[in-house]
Amino acid sequence: MSDSTLHKVSSNKAFEGELIKYKFKSAVLGGLDAHFNLYTPPNATQGKVPVLVYLSGLTCTEDNGAQKGGFLGVASAQGLAVLFPDTSPRGAGVEGEDTDWDFGTGAGFYLNATNPKYSKYYNMLTHITVELPQVIEAAGLPIDFKRQSIFGHSMGGHGALTLYLSSKTKQYRSASAFSPITNPTKCPWGEKAFKGYLQGGVEEAKEQYDATELIAKSKDPVHILVDYGTGDNFYNQGQLLPENFLKAARDAGYDEFQVRVRSQEGYDHSYYFISTFASDHIHFHANFLKA
Amino acid sequence: MSDSTLHKVSSNKAFEGELIKYKFKSAVLGGLDAHFNLYTPPNATQGKVPVLVYLSGLTCTEDNGAQKGGFLGVASAQGLAVLFPDTSPRGAGVEGEDTDWDFGTGAGFYLNATNPKYSKYYNMLTHITVELPQVIEAAGLPIDFKRQSIFGHSMGGHGALTLYLSSKTKQYRSASAFSPITNPTKCPWGEKAFKGYLQGGVEEAKEQYDATELIAKSKDPVHILVDYGTGDNFYNQGQLLPENFLKAARDAGYDEFQVRVRSQEGYDHSYYFISTFASDHIHFHANFLKA
Repeated sequence: MSDSTLHKVSSNKAFEGELIKYKFKSAVLGGLDAHFNLYTPPNATQGKVPVLVYLSGLTCTEDNGAQKGGFLGVASAQGLAVLFPDTSPRGAGVEGEDTDWDFGTGAGFYLNATNPKYSKYYNMLTHITVELPQVIEAAGLPIDFKRQSIFGHSMGGHGALTLYLSSKTKQYRSASAFSPITNPTKCPWGEKAFKGYLQGGVEEAKEQYDATELIAKSKDPVHILVDYGTGDNFYNQGQLLPENFLKAARDAGYDEFQVRVRSQEGYDHSYYFISTFASDHIHFHANFLKA
Repeated sequence: MSDSTLHKVSSNKAFEGELIKYKFKSAVLGGLDAHFNLYTPPNATQGKVPVLVYLSGLTCTEDNGAQKGGFLGVASAQGLAVLFPDTSPRGAGVEGEDTDWDFGTGAGFYLNATNPKYSKYYNMLTHITVELPQVIEAAGLPIDFKRQSIFGHSMGGHGALTLYLSSKTKQYRSASAFSPITNPTKCPWGEKAFKGYLQGGVEEAKEQYDATELIAKSKDPVHILVDYGTGDNFYNQGQLLPENFLKAARDAGYDEFQVRVRSQEGYDHSYYFISTFASDHIHFHANFLKA
């Protein structure tokens, strides 16, 4: 029997709602303690509210988006919860997981590992899509997981787009991303991650873990917003490749009302960029979550 | 000859304006490198703009307010610059300055030390009121220091209120504070700081460095806004004492339009609290800065 009871780690009132950090023993992450932050807006005291899942980038934890994203005020006003998961298992003890900042701890890439070295612990895909909703519902928290959307930054933007596009159950109503890694099978960060986590390496990743590959094959209506900055070093180094994603989307017949990719002049990869467009993204999702 | 030339350390576009981190050799801080962040709103490209100085709390640097305060979006919309100084000299090498988190490095208390052990370096009062405006003006940056207001958090709230109330030149048009230490000669944090930095200890501090003492003696019109949370541990431990400040203000004849002290139910000492009321505070100052 697994004990996935939620334990409250800390609590902060914010914008008349509450940000609570929880931990629990995550079966999906090999029984390790997993942490997440959950912001509930003031109207959650009257009934279940829709939820926006925020996936953070390389090196981040469940705190970065909550502290620096500038999301909570808008979420409060819109009556939306925001769920901030961590970015990887913590303390798995797999050899080499703490060697590099862009692989292993803090760099789970929102996939389920198939390489036996990592597959007991590195299952962030199932952690986010299945386990977190289950433990939150089991705890009786006022979140309506039938009204979910997802967004993220950088590696988390990759996560948001791929979880959205690959969901066979249409789990999320809309997806958005700040400076996402949109074509990871063609960039150094993605290649490294996939070679490490997946038995089939980069080829295996094309099936499920590359937003550009997924949008090219997609035939369903989608609601996607992407922002990236022209002053972003990682964009300029070819880690993000938003043009590839945009081209694949247009080639697949999606117009700008279904897939909008915005180039933001002079903005970089930081949370200053994210916070600038935070309100836009939350209002974008509110259209679908409150429909 | 001192070289107080500003060197750009980093730059981030935010809300169509720019946040730039500078460093320079600070004569007032004993020749050490001092860092600060300066946010300029988009309209600063057309001419000088008013400035709001944000003083941060214990253990903080020039980054905390910029990253977590939620100030930049509102400042951009209002056309205000925001100046984020550090909270102490860094690397003075005075024995014991790194022993405690609430004294020495990260805890300059916005005073000029008179204890010879600290007086070469610990002069944050002059650093903020005189030196920073001088070096920023000398660099030709588009800041109008004739239109300045000041706000801060905790130790920085103490700084904001005392620098405002003690200024003989009426340097600041208005002051506001989140969870400020308002009566530091009567709380453990203040007593420790004053005994360390000042030759005359707590008695010397009453003249200039205690907002409650200062408001009791003040006869000029003032514009002050204070918010604190009832869920703030430091408030509940008697470190902040806003009731003392409020009583002294009312006893001195100030009404709620001149000194407003708001108790915010359930909020704590964190930046989640600050960001919740950030917009209120910036709009408060904008009334005076744009008058």
